[in-house]
Amino acid sequence: MKNCIIAQSGGPTVAINASLAGVIEESITAKAYDTVYGSLHGIMGVLNNDLINLTEKVEEDPHFLDTLKITPAMYLGSCRFKMPSAEEKPQVYEQIFTFFEEKEITGFYYIGGNDSMDTVLQLSAYAQSHGKKVSIMGVPKTIDNDLCHTDHTPGFGSAAKYIACTMSEIAYDTSIYPVPSVTIAEIMGRDAGWLTAATALASTSYGLGVDLIYLPEVAFDRNQFVADVTSVLKSKKNVLIAISEGIRDENNEYISASTATTDSFGHSQLSGAGKALEYLIADRLGIKVRSIEINLPQRCAAHLSSATDLAESAELGKIAVKKAMQCVTGHMSVIQRTANTPYTVTYDTANIAEIANQVKNVPRSYINQAGNYVTEEMLTYLRPLIAGEPKVEYKDGLPQFAPLNHLYK
Amino acid sequence: MKNCIIAQSGGPTVAINASLAGVIEESITAKAYDTVYGSLHGIMGVLNNDLINLTEKVEEDPHFLDTLKITPAMYLGSCRFKMPSAEEKPQVYEQIFTFFEEKEITGFYYIGGNDSMDTVLQLSAYAQSHGKKVSIMGVPKTIDNDLCHTDHTPGFGSAAKYIACTMSEIAYDTSIYPVPSVTIAEIMGRDAGWLTAATALASTSYGLGVDLIYLPEVAFDRNQFVADVTSVLKSKKNVLIAISEGIRDENNEYISASTATTDSFGHSQLSGAGKALEYLIADRLGIKVRSIEINLPQRCAAHLSSATDLAESAELGKIAVKKAMQCVTGHMSVIQRTANTPYTVTYDTANIAEIANQVKNVPRSYINQAGNYVTEEMLTYLRPLIAGEPKVEYKDGLPQFAPLNHLYK
Repeated sequence: MKNCIIAQSGGPTVAINASLAGVIEESITAKAYDTVYGSLHGIMGVLNNDLINLTEKVEEDPHFLDTLKITPAMYLGSCRFKMPSAEEKPQVYEQIFTFFEEKEITGFYYIGGNDSMDTVLQLSAYAQSHGKKVSIMGVPKTIDNDLCHTDHTPGFGSAAKYIACTMSEIAYDTSIYPVPSVTIAEIMGRDAGWLTAATALASTSYGLGVDLIYLPEVAFDRNQFVADVTSVLKSKKNVLIAISEGIRDENNEYISASTATTDSFGHSQLSGAGKALEYLIADRLGIKVRSIEINLPQRCAAHLSSATDLAESAELGKIAVKKAMQCVTGHMSVIQRTANTPYTVTYDTANIAEIANQVKNVPRSYINQAGNYVTEEMLTYLRPLIAGEPKVEYKDGLPQFAPLNHLYK
Repeated sequence: MKNCIIAQSGGPTVAINASLAGVIEESITAKAYDTVYGSLHGIMGVLNNDLINLTEKVEEDPHFLDTLKITPAMYLGSCRFKMPSAEEKPQVYEQIFTFFEEKEITGFYYIGGNDSMDTVLQLSAYAQSHGKKVSIMGVPKTIDNDLCHTDHTPGFGSAAKYIACTMSEIAYDTSIYPVPSVTIAEIMGRDAGWLTAATALASTSYGLGVDLIYLPEVAFDRNQFVADVTSVLKSKKNVLIAISEGIRDENNEYISASTATTDSFGHSQLSGAGKALEYLIADRLGIKVRSIEINLPQRCAAHLSSATDLAESAELGKIAVKKAMQCVTGHMSVIQRTANTPYTVTYDTANIAEIANQVKNVPRSYINQAGNYVTEEMLTYLRPLIAGEPKVEYKDGLPQFAPLNHLYK
């Protein structure tokens, strides 16, 4: 018998279940394993013997994989378990690999972000040094697009599409009044500005769209910001601005309205960059201004996912299985872009040691000289990633996703 | 020559352009007018002679009306102009009706919410008392669903669908961790809780979905709220709560974290109900809690509009023209529900004097006894309104709406 376990970890995206579907599909098609298990709540399911049989799920429902591909968040649940080192707690590793032997596991697939790739690194190093015949493979996901050695990350394209579409709709919403106004949208991204950059895709030739974009990669200058807004207001009544939540000033301090904000219980409360800049514009320019957060839907709006992103995410799951069949271990699947027009990619895996615990920021050449918009190079990079709409089934007006009743026991 | 003018006013919805398309379509099909004009920025376009020729737009582009129907916000722009009374400023009325005579206008259609219906009321009363042969017709729109004499309002179904879908996706997002958490979503609605009630549509049979719902129609009790959350946490790890922005306590005071919040410039800042309850739960229960606002996309997410809503909104535009042809004036078009299964409606118009300046709240029977969820009666009312997905054309990954370059001159 040869079986495998798949687990998911970290924060949700709308593409992480497409990667899960890809691993399952390739495992079954290539007859790579007798049984494909899902570990509930990441590596915790392995430590707690909390598995579900995914091969059975596919046999029971011929539409299971298609529904899974468009289901947001994590079908198997997540965890925030930080793996201790093998030196520190060898018993955790012994427990995991004893469990693998009992269940006749020869492949372990971890779909996740940076922290999850660290788990892959630790487990594969242990397996190799202890002669364990288990391929430990990582499959990436993060809406932040900040993993190295891959052209982009699964989940990013869908989040970028949601953000671009939403900003386009907000541009329509904010453009209807003939009185000056400023709208500031705060986008996810503590360290990397990729998602905020995607708001540039919402711009039209005649002026509707996002006017100013600020990323964490460029030091934020409050006075220059006010000057930028004033400049746009000369030619346009309704100014639309996108900022990353993680923008910082020249002293590397986050932009936030931190001083003197306390709640009714006396707790000090930080408010975000958007609120801080809303107050700044109100104070300096005295015009109508509001700030909004494009919050959770960025990472879970499955009804508006990118077909390109979902297809690639599934392929990244498949390539991990193919490589594991070739006895590769300690690798993460990656996308390599081979052309922009038409957009083509190839799939491969790369050594996890070169990927884990590193961050890919937006290159300076993707940001304009003034630091308040992106360049054509960035747009060329982004455009193909949001292309295509997946087939989503609706029932009674709502999209139908895979049920999570196995997490509600 | 017989011409007409259409104008839009108030806050945006995703259905207000479908009503515009309905008025244009019926005007052309029924040969009701020689030329259909659009007044830019509501009644301001009439006062400033700022019209566009909509008949020409249709002749130039055979897809114009179809694109218009799925375009969010207001193709003609909005205004926040409060009509003075005819006694107070007769010259404004004289100017408007002189302009109507010059342009040979026999029909004026105002698509808007409560304030706009007041303008319809004033103009039609003036026309009748001064012997002006112009039909003044109102076409309703508001995501708040709070207009009387109509089963529901155009724009509400689409906003309800967006909210239900988004809450379903957020339920997936928040359910993945095996640690207790509370998520509070603040929904638009100062006085009426219709939109917040729509979050109930996101619930599943196995427990995923919205657990607690609080509307402005029931006095909010902070202690009971903490008790409700504590109760849900006994059977479920991740609690999802929907509240209207306008919830008030037994003294009719808004729930807000108002005390001691000032920005970095010393301005006192109100934070909303969601933030206030986030602090309350953190303080009383000490568990992971966050609050989010489902903000502007509620009223502009055209990519996820309700096909039922858009079709009805167009019909409401058409019935207004049909009735104006029968010399009706001072009326607003309304929807009457004739059955729930299958859902059927009829269209008519009603005297504007019975509609303007009134508010339709959620009936108590649509809210459960405990005041923390809605009843099956509410769900029966809501379900048909979100049904169906309109055909939205995508290009390069983004929905294609009618361009607004006429507002960018």
